[in-house]
Amino acid sequence: MAILDRLRDLLGPGHVLTGDDAAGFGREWTGHYRWTPLAVLRPGSTEEVAGVLRLANAEGVPVVPLGGNTGLNGGTMAEGALMLSLARLNRIRELNAPARTIVAEAGVVLEALHEVAAVEGLSFPLTFGAKGSATVGGFLSTNAGGSNVLRYGSARALCLGLEVVLADGRVMNLMSALHKDNTGYDLRDLMIGAEGTLGVITAAVLRLVPAPRAYATALLGMESLGAALDLLNALQAGTGAAVEAFEFMPAAFMERLGALKPDLACPFAPQPVNILIETATTMAGEDPQARLEALLAEAFEAGQISEAVLAGSEAQRRKLWAMREAAAEITFTEPDLVDTDVALPLDRLETFLSRMHARLLAIDPGARELSVAHLGDGNIHYAAYPSDPALKPVIRAAVAEEAVALGGSFSAEHGVGVSKRATMAAHKDPVALEVMRAIKAALDPKNILNPGKVLP
Amino acid sequence: MAILDRLRDLLGPGHVLTGDDAAGFGREWTGHYRWTPLAVLRPGSTEEVAGVLRLANAEGVPVVPLGGNTGLNGGTMAEGALMLSLARLNRIRELNAPARTIVAEAGVVLEALHEVAAVEGLSFPLTFGAKGSATVGGFLSTNAGGSNVLRYGSARALCLGLEVVLADGRVMNLMSALHKDNTGYDLRDLMIGAEGTLGVITAAVLRLVPAPRAYATALLGMESLGAALDLLNALQAGTGAAVEAFEFMPAAFMERLGALKPDLACPFAPQPVNILIETATTMAGEDPQARLEALLAEAFEAGQISEAVLAGSEAQRRKLWAMREAAAEITFTEPDLVDTDVALPLDRLETFLSRMHARLLAIDPGARELSVAHLGDGNIHYAAYPSDPALKPVIRAAVAEEAVALGGSFSAEHGVGVSKRATMAAHKDPVALEVMRAIKAALDPKNILNPGKVLP
Repeated sequence: MAILDRLRDLLGPGHVLTGDDAAGFGREWTGHYRWTPLAVLRPGSTEEVAGVLRLANAEGVPVVPLGGNTGLNGGTMAEGALMLSLARLNRIRELNAPARTIVAEAGVVLEALHEVAAVEGLSFPLTFGAKGSATVGGFLSTNAGGSNVLRYGSARALCLGLEVVLADGRVMNLMSALHKDNTGYDLRDLMIGAEGTLGVITAAVLRLVPAPRAYATALLGMESLGAALDLLNALQAGTGAAVEAFEFMPAAFMERLGALKPDLACPFAPQPVNILIETATTMAGEDPQARLEALLAEAFEAGQISEAVLAGSEAQRRKLWAMREAAAEITFTEPDLVDTDVALPLDRLETFLSRMHARLLAIDPGARELSVAHLGDGNIHYAAYPSDPALKPVIRAAVAEEAVALGGSFSAEHGVGVSKRATMAAHKDPVALEVMRAIKAALDPKNILNPGKVLP
Repeated sequence: MAILDRLRDLLGPGHVLTGDDAAGFGREWTGHYRWTPLAVLRPGSTEEVAGVLRLANAEGVPVVPLGGNTGLNGGTMAEGALMLSLARLNRIRELNAPARTIVAEAGVVLEALHEVAAVEGLSFPLTFGAKGSATVGGFLSTNAGGSNVLRYGSARALCLGLEVVLADGRVMNLMSALHKDNTGYDLRDLMIGAEGTLGVITAAVLRLVPAPRAYATALLGMESLGAALDLLNALQAGTGAAVEAFEFMPAAFMERLGALKPDLACPFAPQPVNILIETATTMAGEDPQARLEALLAEAFEAGQISEAVLAGSEAQRRKLWAMREAAAEITFTEPDLVDTDVALPLDRLETFLSRMHARLLAIDPGARELSVAHLGDGNIHYAAYPSDPALKPVIRAAVAEEAVALGGSFSAEHGVGVSKRATMAAHKDPVALEVMRAIKAALDPKNILNPGKVLP
């Protein structure tokens, strides 16, 4: 094809992969989505990304940006499309320690950001399981979350500036390192979370924070999610908003964990609500463990907590986290599951879970369920295992319906991709959908950027 | 006019003000901008706002939304336009204390939010001088800042959800109370800060935080802004990010303050860099004053601080704040000034001020200058008093140029309105301007919403 020849001229023949060379790029890492790209492109600079898009836009050939391939919703499906890997844009352009900012290109891996910041005694606090593969461009395009969102916010809250290549190859420079910048529309946040459908992020200015000096980590058993929310509010006030994680594992989760991984069994009889708490401090002279113990003692006396184990060493802390981090593994042991990613207002999680339990059994009396939640963010990964795989779409629809009915969202942190387009059509405000379509048409009139994603 | 009759039918004749009844609406509060509106409309509900916009859009009549009239850039100029006052949409729809959220309509005054939250032991932390008049719709439409942004962020960071009426009267429901919600493009943040040119905000879901139990407040004298940034970073780590304010008053500010208001004179010989610091805590048993004293003692020993006064009582605290809050009064004593609102990367404020000093004297050897800064945000309100008022545009352009050359912004928190359109044309990334125009055309094709604002 003529366009591939022109792309080889632009990028060098070694950076336009086709046939067998591109075969490894034809699937999402879970294997749930598979496709055959027209070619995989590996530009080495923002200018080369712009050149690719100018060509693709002129020819009307679709382009699918690719980060670390750690998505879950088919967001990089690229049947017959050009896959645009940002892997070679992997420079840290600047680290400004006094100003607490770092400028990184789209292909920089999240874990590399962690390492570079740590050298300066600083932290880039976004973190999640896929940190060894996920990249700046990917975590911004999906507004990724994870287990520290409670304290530091999602990817959006950690981004000050962006460099973006638009569908027709124009380069938009929003590379502000400022904490206040009211100069027109917030195009940065429009691009963040747009899943590559409005532009290709090539670089970003990110915020850094001082690295914690010490952590306190505990596993608690409680009776109810209402009591857990009261405890969260007490801990936020009592630690000066130093709660880094507040993760919910229900009894069923603990039982399954103990059965599949006995060395990670719950250290007490699993309670209806089991919470992994972590607080951290940057303050000299502050003992976060003593403070957490004192706050938990109050909750114990008030009857809010029935069980508690504090990590007394880094090894014990790692073990408590290993319980939570086993979630993906124990959830995906059986292939026929409905895995979801919903968010609820903080005071409605209990209602959601009890309604969903009844609803699931009404649909399928033989079904089982398993949940784990970033409780402090109201974000539940609810999974159901139907007795008949044919019921999966019905259950998936029911989860979205119950979440939305309680003022929740059917997509908290994983994004829409292709898997939730139908749910978008069913549940997103129709006027908001019209506005999204109008913006998409204005910025990408030929619909070449990651077509078929996000918008139903 | 036929449209006024139809508006009277829609809103009731008492809520369509014309002639003398509308005369009080024809100026910005400073008096710098004056106009004659076609009429002032006072709808009482979101549905009535939608009705107004349907009519105005059909007839092609411009509509200018109005909050508390506390802007500074002509953002509500409405010559021949319908002014849409949101004052009657003033209900608190819901306060959910456990979930730390409040749902307020656009006309609710900022200070009323403070009062309602305080009853629950909570705080809505956005605050600035105009809090007794500024409204939810206004502070969101301008993404307002103020003196607590360092800890809690600008208005945008405190907003979870929005209800917006679009140019043609469609009501867009983005009223999420969620901390994570990745369902398509971030239309909420697009509307925030758009200064009423993309839609009319009618209600919002806002975040609340626990109210501080105790404050520590100090005034420091230092040699340089570089030392001040080091101190800020040390205080952020040393207090667990509990620094609420870090405000810079240079020697010239202190001297002018002492001359005009002797009771607020600096308690020590003004130093090149004078900083008002405030920290706060929600933690029981934490003494923020003792902690601040200990941290300042370290800085004193390291030679970073030359003078320090700690507030020992609430009265002393109020007096230190009164010094900072006198800024507007002492800045505007002379009418012929150039007042600005720039932001710089945190490590470049010193360079900006020294370059600007030289530049100003090169333009006008008889000019004086006066600055005050939200230093923790990199936000300087730099003012110059030229010897010849005709030099004002040249000085204004120089300020923007020097800020932008250092990676700064010509509008940190006040917005663009009409006064900074020319600066937008000169300094905003041209591709970003093209994208903004494309979005404006897509959402408001007849250009009826606050026309002539923001976009050059």
